[in-house]
Amino acid sequence: MEGVDYLIDERKKAQFDVEAMKVAWAGSREAFELSDRMAKLVANDPAFEKFTRPMLSRKELFKNTLRKAAHGWKLIVDLRLTEEEAKWLRLYIDEPAYTDLHWGMFIPAIEGQGTEEQKKKWLPLARRMQIIGCYAQTELGHGSNVQGLETTATFDPQADEFVIHSPTLTSSKWWPGGLGKASTHALVYARLIVGGEFHGVHGTLRKLVSSLNSAVGKPVSNCIAVVCIYRLCGKMNLSIVYHRCFNEGFIVQLRSLEDHLPLPGITVGDIGLKFGNGAYNTMDNGVLRFDHVRIPRDQMLMRVAQVTKEGKFRQSDVPRQLLYGTMVYVRQTIVSDASKALSRAVCIATRYSAVRRQFGSRNGGPETQVIDYKTQQSRLFPLLASAYAFRFVGEWLKWLYTDVKQRLEANDFSTLPEAHACTAGLKSLTTTATADGIEECRKLCGGHGYLVSSGLPELFAVYIPACTYEGDNVVLLLQVARFLVKTVSELGYKQPVGTTAYMGRVAALMQNNCTVRTVEDWLNPGAIVEAFEARAARMSVACGRQLAKFENPEEGFAELASDLVEAALAHCQLIVVSKFVEKLQQDIPGKGVKQSLEILCYVYALFLLHKHQGEFLATGYLTPKQAVLANEQLRTLYSKVRPNAIALVDSFNYTDHYLGSILGRYDGNVYPKLYEAAWQDPLNDSDVADGFHQYVQPILKQKLHSAKL
Amino acid sequence: MEGVDYLIDERKKAQFDVEAMKVAWAGSREAFELSDRMAKLVANDPAFEKFTRPMLSRKELFKNTLRKAAHGWKLIVDLRLTEEEAKWLRLYIDEPAYTDLHWGMFIPAIEGQGTEEQKKKWLPLARRMQIIGCYAQTELGHGSNVQGLETTATFDPQADEFVIHSPTLTSSKWWPGGLGKASTHALVYARLIVGGEFHGVHGTLRKLVSSLNSAVGKPVSNCIAVVCIYRLCGKMNLSIVYHRCFNEGFIVQLRSLEDHLPLPGITVGDIGLKFGNGAYNTMDNGVLRFDHVRIPRDQMLMRVAQVTKEGKFRQSDVPRQLLYGTMVYVRQTIVSDASKALSRAVCIATRYSAVRRQFGSRNGGPETQVIDYKTQQSRLFPLLASAYAFRFVGEWLKWLYTDVKQRLEANDFSTLPEAHACTAGLKSLTTTATADGIEECRKLCGGHGYLVSSGLPELFAVYIPACTYEGDNVVLLLQVARFLVKTVSELGYKQPVGTTAYMGRVAALMQNNCTVRTVEDWLNPGAIVEAFEARAARMSVACGRQLAKFENPEEGFAELASDLVEAALAHCQLIVVSKFVEKLQQDIPGKGVKQSLEILCYVYALFLLHKHQGEFLATGYLTPKQAVLANEQLRTLYSKVRPNAIALVDSFNYTDHYLGSILGRYDGNVYPKLYEAAWQDPLNDSDVADGFHQYVQPILKQKLHSAKL
Ligand SMILES: Cc1cc2nc3c(=O)[nH]c(=O)nc-3n(C[C@H](O)[C@H](O)[C@H](O)COP(=O)(O)OP(=O)(O)OC[C@H]3O[C@@H](n4cnc5c(N)ncnc54)[C@H](O)[C@@H]3O)c2cc1C
Ligand SMILES: Cc1cc2nc3c(=O)[nH]c(=O)nc-3n(C[C@H](O)[C@H](O)[C@H](O)COP(=O)(O)OP(=O)(O)OC[C@H]3O[C@@H](n4cnc5c(N)ncnc54)[C@H](O)[C@@H]3O)c2cc1C
Ligand SMILES: [Ca+2]
Repeated sequence: MEGVDYLIDERKKAQFDVEAMKVAWAGSREAFELSDRMAKLVANDPAFEKFTRPMLSRKELFKNTLRKAAHGWKLIVDLRLTEEEAKWLRLYIDEPAYTDLHWGMFIPAIEGQGTEEQKKKWLPLARRMQIIGCYAQTELGHGSNVQGLETTATFDPQADEFVIHSPTLTSSKWWPGGLGKASTHALVYARLIVGGEFHGVHGTLRKLVSSLNSAVGKPVSNCIAVVCIYRLCGKMNLSIVYHRCFNEGFIVQLRSLEDHLPLPGITVGDIGLKFGNGAYNTMDNGVLRFDHVRIPRDQMLMRVAQVTKEGKFRQSDVPRQLLYGTMVYVRQTIVSDASKALSRAVCIATRYSAVRRQFGSRNGGPETQVIDYKTQQSRLFPLLASAYAFRFVGEWLKWLYTDVKQRLEANDFSTLPEAHACTAGLKSLTTTATADGIEECRKLCGGHGYLVSSGLPELFAVYIPACTYEGDNVVLLLQVARFLVKTVSELGYKQPVGTTAYMGRVAALMQNNCTVRTVEDWLNPGAIVEAFEARAARMSVACGRQLAKFENPEEGFAELASDLVEAALAHCQLIVVSKFVEKLQQDIPGKGVKQSLEILCYVYALFLLHKHQGEFLATGYLTPKQAVLANEQLRTLYSKVRPNAIALVDSFNYTDHYLGSILGRYDGNVYPKLYEAAWQDPLNDSDVADGFHQYVQPILKQKLHSAKL
Repeated sequence: MEGVDYLIDERKKAQFDVEAMKVAWAGSREAFELSDRMAKLVANDPAFEKFTRPMLSRKELFKNTLRKAAHGWKLIVDLRLTEEEAKWLRLYIDEPAYTDLHWGMFIPAIEGQGTEEQKKKWLPLARRMQIIGCYAQTELGHGSNVQGLETTATFDPQADEFVIHSPTLTSSKWWPGGLGKASTHALVYARLIVGGEFHGVHGTLRKLVSSLNSAVGKPVSNCIAVVCIYRLCGKMNLSIVYHRCFNEGFIVQLRSLEDHLPLPGITVGDIGLKFGNGAYNTMDNGVLRFDHVRIPRDQMLMRVAQVTKEGKFRQSDVPRQLLYGTMVYVRQTIVSDASKALSRAVCIATRYSAVRRQFGSRNGGPETQVIDYKTQQSRLFPLLASAYAFRFVGEWLKWLYTDVKQRLEANDFSTLPEAHACTAGLKSLTTTATADGIEECRKLCGGHGYLVSSGLPELFAVYIPACTYEGDNVVLLLQVARFLVKTVSELGYKQPVGTTAYMGRVAALMQNNCTVRTVEDWLNPGAIVEAFEARAARMSVACGRQLAKFENPEEGFAELASDLVEAALAHCQLIVVSKFVEKLQQDIPGKGVKQSLEILCYVYALFLLHKHQGEFLATGYLTPKQAVLANEQLRTLYSKVRPNAIALVDSFNYTDHYLGSILGRYDGNVYPKLYEAAWQDPLNDSDVADGFHQYVQPILKQKLHSAKL
């Protein structure tokens, strides 16, 4: 029945003030109100309906996204929304679109890498959307290894232009969102070649580079600031002066601003279907090839490096590390998105687990709600706790980013490597856990979770690329490991900072073992954090010791890569746990709010401890007995979460529109709505399916031999 | 270039005879040849093209599947294929269709549960496909708890008919494959009510049942064979004689054999979109409601229980446990399918990992193949090993099934509970690992794995329901746990059999710890199996001890469910490991074949040991040092797998058609084919996207205010 709240009894069980928790989740009352306003704006606007999305063909789907994007932009303009409001509006529209890249990558990149002059020229155009831009870095052949990009940008001093070219098939730009159909411009990353044009194919280039290498004495492709000049006398009696530089970003117009047709020399299109039905297929991830496309010199972004009119390459005194600042920013938003995606999935699975009853009926009474099964709790509640943990670590990363920015402005680069490693690691940890967590939530919903109308399949399909873009999650953990190994090796003379500060206490962490003796002893933030510190420190040190056995450190690193990744993950988990603990040391208003969060914090930590108990035991920090006590405490904690479970997911304040799930409906009215929705499938348009007379009737009537198949 | 084998160098590295390994994988030369013939038959027939599948609308998709099913059936008839050949043919067509349920569930259920007479009547019709049947058990409200089904089948002695009825919304049949559009008949499971008609709604039924409960003294819904009679005088002055029986299966005709329209009283349709694009959406999983539909008495399957003309309910002397035999059969096929799905994913990821190069170029030479990175190996090779492990345990399960069948025919039920627990556990273990493994393979392919043309998204989407159907994987592990706990508690007086035989040596397994001292010591099947036995036995015993602390064993079981599931998994892993080891004690012909399989067996076991080292350490069987040695050995083993990796996946003998993956192409010609495929997306039909003029141009031209959105 409409209007009835089938979860009312669950909501009555809550032991904390849900409204206050909403504020704690949002970060502040203002943040809550802003986000709430935008959520309702979208939810109440039929233009943003999304139920039919998965049934659309690719073309209809894309057109529909263009429509929504336009409608969204109209609202932003008409209602004069602030940038912050616009961001939330786009988030709640909940449909990947070219605008994500335009606002999220193209504009920030120009802001970060453009000169004042360039910003003055391009930003107003972009901010008014008179041009639409995307971020074209990845190529068919290179993603993780950005240094290996093959697209060339050769400076032609005669014309004062760069010639952008795709010398090989694998140099085709491939993946950039918004590139395929929507963008008029792209920020293209390419190998800068100054001092002469280079027309070689890959093989020739390789010869050239290898000659350069022997000349310079170390691999050119690995050096960033070294600019080399080399003279080659080729068979064609051609003299080439070659400057091998870092990849640079170039603003390249792709399509006419009049008729939107690709400009001469540009081949551009969509790369085809991706995972899922609607999901990320609303985005025109694109392919792009250049055939000697010319752009003015001033369309190279020149904040950190310039090419002069005369064809001279110059590094400005703004250090290249500055660009890391943008990376910290982007990855910080990815962590924050992880908490959103995971909390959505958890909200759906939690509500449905309270609605769903299976087994355990006594005397003909109702069956047990599946949320009451301990196995269900032990799969679901750690994810609920993770959603909160990621929310708070994301908040902290936002602070870290502003801190880094301020320091950079004051020319203080000291914390940058640590901040960079930390965001890389947290991006990897949170996105992997979220992707796996969404799928676990789907399984927690049994068969019905497999229906698109549960919302979970599409959420999974649209989310998982976060594990890959902005750095493959394994490659990122290897970067963290590299930083940890370095930190350990320098302990003798360099004080570790930020999230690695605990390494400064390595001697104590190696020596002192856990002192927990009872189940209750585990309810102690100090004991918890120390356990995670000791495990992470011991694993890093063990890796360091193993590495020391290798003559060639690079070989050692390669050989031990798996162990290094485990150590890096241990370090990142420590960060999440300690930021959660730190959060709880702050004042958090509202009846029962802090207490409920404390329970979740313990759940998160002890769940990890149980899952990775092998590492805690192997490093000798824990005894088996202590691990058992932790596990027992965990069970008790689940019972404490149970009455609050629905209220804890209500606190995310998600509208039914944003959730997009019949199983996760706020009112719990699942079955009638599932039943209704089924009939909307096109297959139910007719009683007898299209194709029956051609392909089934002949079988039933044993007349297949004369049938036309 | 066409015709070039880009993986030829990889193939040359193989240290074993690939053709012999193909036979080992297939099980026998005959099996290999049969499967190879069917694979080629499908691959070379353009009627089975599947590249465009994900781009079709639901209706086109379904029609296309009907066409393929008809074409497949025509081949089967025309070529007079055997049942075995037909099974492989359907497998290689690689598209879920109503025929799967017809042949895989409907027919076997009649074979298992029908009387001789019933089989004589229905099987010829079904085998000639003059009728199409599905298996309708699950309802909107009940899946795992089959005992809770609400559909009623009330016997009307006057008419000698059953009245099939859906008394509640949640009693609607929901999920059965082939039900929505294709089937003419369904095998419907329903609560049998004999001795009077029952017209109550759920509430009334509940009252009735609770009265029955108090009369009988224990929950009626839990007792199987007890038939109770009770007399109620309702308000309507109606006297009801009520036989509460086990759910029974009924053959119900759903659609006219003339025009395929649903028969009177039948509401039937498709339940809507499921995960993925093509994937399982080729199947018409259906919803079905009955409004007092009448069927003749002899359409209840009566092998184990009968209702007589007079309305008497009788159990025959064929025990109900016999039905478990069918379950063992079906789950055995699921394990075998797991090895197929996982090996497909692994084949794609392995080949692509050899093609893909990223980082590590020296002197301008080619970059490192990503398969050479230890992290890539440590993620990929255990999955490769798992595919082989599941293949062999599946083979063994097939043997187990024939053994069980023979025993049942000889009225020996002694091994049935163990066989039942064992197949339940192996179904759970292999399908969970396969689902996770496919997704890991996708991630191993970086960005390109996210493209549908990689084959991996659709493989994942179509595979994952295997974790849910035929028993939710967690519910199944709980069943295994129950069996283990029982086995442990009876150790004093009952010799454990089959896969639990090791429990008979529990004292030794509790006492003796691992004796490994060097890295090489781990290359010892005895040491490996003993480690897994000790861990499983110790975990089961620990659970038993914990359970003993509870007054009410059921409460204890519920409270400790998570730990019990872990113990059950440990037991199941032991089975897989020991069946792999046993396989290697057989004669396996072919140069290097056995040696290569031995390496994989060690990889599988030591990978599990590392992953679950917490359990091996916590139970005290291993020391941290021994765990480290195992991990070191594992690294060495990866290096031994490396040169054989491509050959090991070639040995699956999959055609490019069956793989359906550009990344997994046999010839490794990935990039040109990815590039070509992109242009086939409908979005690339025109240079300017549909919707541009309406929804993008007005933005660029700042004319949104006057645009029609
Ligand atoms: C949906 C989506 C949207 C995207 N949007 C954009 C965009 O807007 N703009 C853009 O420029 N790009 C975009 N990308 C591309 C994305 O950034 C790359 O896919 C990503 O950087 C991963 O690189 P890759 O695909 O080359 O993976 P690979 O590097 O090829 O990864 C393959 C495997 O190799 C492993 N591997 C690679 N290097 C190493 C190493 N050194 N050590 C150990 N293992 C290694 C990886 O772990 C992985 O398992 C997008 C991608 C997707 C999926
Ligand atoms: C693609 C697909 C095809 C199918 N085909 C058919 C078909 O042809 N015919 C047919 O009859 N059915 C079919 N089904 C239905 C399928 O058999 C059920 O979905 C399955 O049995 C799981 O039951 P459920 O959906 O009720 O899950 P639920 O039991 O509702 O599971 C929900 C959650 O509760 C948990 N849970 C449930 N009980 C317990 C317990 N006692 N202890 C602890 N945890 C518990 C589960 O672990 C899960 O996390 C199909 C399903 C799918 C997805
Ligand atoms: Ca589709």
